[in-house]
Amino acid sequence: MSPPQQASPPPRSAARDAVLRDTPVATVDLDAVERNVARMQAYCDEHGLALRPHVKTHKLPELAHLQMRAGAVGITCQKLGEAEVMAAAGLTDILLSFPLVGDAKVERLVALAREVTMSVVGDSETVARGLSAGLARAGLEVAFLVECDTGFGRTGVQAPGDAADLAELVAGLPGLRFEGLMTYPTLTATGPWLRAAIDEISARGLEVRTVSGGGTPGFFSSHRAPELTEVRAGTYVYGDRSCIANGTVALEDCALRVHATVVSRPTVGRAILDAGSKTLSNDPAEGDPDGRGLIVEYPDARIHALSEEHGWVDLSACERRPEVGEVVTVVPNHACGCANLHDEVVVLRGGQVVGVWPVAARGRIR
Amino acid sequence: MSPPQQASPPPRSAARDAVLRDTPVATVDLDAVERNVARMQAYCDEHGLALRPHVKTHKLPELAHLQMRAGAVGITCQKLGEAEVMAAAGLTDILLSFPLVGDAKVERLVALAREVTMSVVGDSETVARGLSAGLARAGLEVAFLVECDTGFGRTGVQAPGDAADLAELVAGLPGLRFEGLMTYPTLTATGPWLRAAIDEISARGLEVRTVSGGGTPGFFSSHRAPELTEVRAGTYVYGDRSCIANGTVALEDCALRVHATVVSRPTVGRAILDAGSKTLSNDPAEGDPDGRGLIVEYPDARIHALSEEHGWVDLSACERRPEVGEVVTVVPNHACGCANLHDEVVVLRGGQVVGVWPVAARGRIR
Repeated sequence: MSPPQQASPPPRSAARDAVLRDTPVATVDLDAVERNVARMQAYCDEHGLALRPHVKTHKLPELAHLQMRAGAVGITCQKLGEAEVMAAAGLTDILLSFPLVGDAKVERLVALAREVTMSVVGDSETVARGLSAGLARAGLEVAFLVECDTGFGRTGVQAPGDAADLAELVAGLPGLRFEGLMTYPTLTATGPWLRAAIDEISARGLEVRTVSGGGTPGFFSSHRAPELTEVRAGTYVYGDRSCIANGTVALEDCALRVHATVVSRPTVGRAILDAGSKTLSNDPAEGDPDGRGLIVEYPDARIHALSEEHGWVDLSACERRPEVGEVVTVVPNHACGCANLHDEVVVLRGGQVVGVWPVAARGRIR
Repeated sequence: MSPPQQASPPPRSAARDAVLRDTPVATVDLDAVERNVARMQAYCDEHGLALRPHVKTHKLPELAHLQMRAGAVGITCQKLGEAEVMAAAGLTDILLSFPLVGDAKVERLVALAREVTMSVVGDSETVARGLSAGLARAGLEVAFLVECDTGFGRTGVQAPGDAADLAELVAGLPGLRFEGLMTYPTLTATGPWLRAAIDEISARGLEVRTVSGGGTPGFFSSHRAPELTEVRAGTYVYGDRSCIANGTVALEDCALRVHATVVSRPTVGRAILDAGSKTLSNDPAEGDPDGRGLIVEYPDARIHALSEEHGWVDLSACERRPEVGEVVTVVPNHACGCANLHDEVVVLRGGQVVGVWPVAARGRIR
């Protein structure tokens, strides 16, 4: 395993300016990242919860190591490709929170599990048996968490009794070690649901060691579900318009921002930015499904639509209005979708460029 | 300039299977691409229109060369980064259909214009003067098209008289050669708008040599605007759910498809795919803003939501339903947004894998 990566040394002043001059460009404010990481870790420490941050948001080994140094017990990845990048960069304890299906996936899991501590999840016998066969053949044993649908309606077994059935199956399969339960997100119904599952599983003589809840929006309510031993959250590291709307990250702590240039002012009320859906994504924001980003310098402006490379801005509510050539700063609707569109991010500290990091796990959809 | 790239030779059978087994994976059916390219080129040939395909859809030098061999006069790029990739791959005539603002952009345009034939667009004096200064300093002259807003409400001058004013300014600026007009998309009002602009510009003693219209949806109505000399279209090369809805590309000609695996069947009516917004994009489709893709094998299934890596499928209208582990084929809502999320595409001919192409201009947002 290679050692933790550090920010590349600050380039000379002209080069520093250049990386921000050629827009659109995604920037990451390390000071804000550190505030967000410290706040979430402090909450977990206060409530005796393990924090296992989800790296799908930043996709940067540098920030995964930063989260580990702050006290995280390990990381969460959504896809094996992310885990492969993180393992190669020295992260050694990875929960793969997505069901792995098919021989190709199991082969890759085996390769990873030979190098680092992997845990996996699943909500079906098919998934459990597929993992078991491949891992047992390789002489490996990996921790398995039963995914529970505690109200979101996505993946997960549907009832506490189903969780117990799958736990029992897994406990008897070679290559897997029943470890506990996992759910996403943490909702009001999550605690009682998990309690019933834990009781049922315990009644069958199995130990539930880990109970993993997830998500940034409900993060600060995690202590209300005392069944949880661990929380996973990703978006909080950057924040975004959804986080501002749901109160988990304030605007001043939104660390991922896109610098964009006004390239056209065709009418008094309209500006066009050089950042569209291929830069910001068409992901909606909580509380404002039609807006497409917040312009920090012009909070009364409204990005109301995105073409692939054009951001459409309605200036009609603005007293002051930007001219062609002005660079503005956009807080995206959804940090995870936005970050995934950028090959690299410009890293700032104290408002100064201190590095340019490749988004190493960007696009790792497999 | 390097020679046109060819598909890599077919890998051995096991390797061929492997690239489709590890999902999600984007596939491009070359037979369908060739049908789409031939149909669009035949329409243009019939109506005496030059075709300048927009490569922002596929971002592949291989397909740009295929379009050139079919009769295109050159290509269109939306961002300089795309143009840089295409020029390096041997494309020699490139219209940059996005306003270039700022010194960094002008410097890159100068470098490109030294190597290949570049044309540019703009809708403001600021853009024109910025380009002029940089190009004249470099001893270059580049064709400039005045962008006209003929009804879309995005970029472009607002009235035919404004087009004439900008044309006159450009004609007097060093480094630029007034070439004509450009608009997007081609609407019912486009022809009369452009006619008025052409008349006004001609009355001022300037020649309008090129009039460039754009877009796949209105493509086959381009002949109804006889003012057009050239059409730009991108999406038609692949087709997508929007193209099916607006009648420009049939389902059987949709060339870009994402192979995805059913990873969970938590309820009788629900399936979850391993393809979410980071694989398909949250771009909406014409005629069905809430659907997120068409499952070819299960046309009655509905992808009704995407998480980043999960596709949520409602199976309640399906008689037959897929099991965990089944691989399905998804036609995305919007080919351009989807293709931009994939580092590579698996290329098929006659249903067989014949290569894996890096999406060379993917993510070139600057």
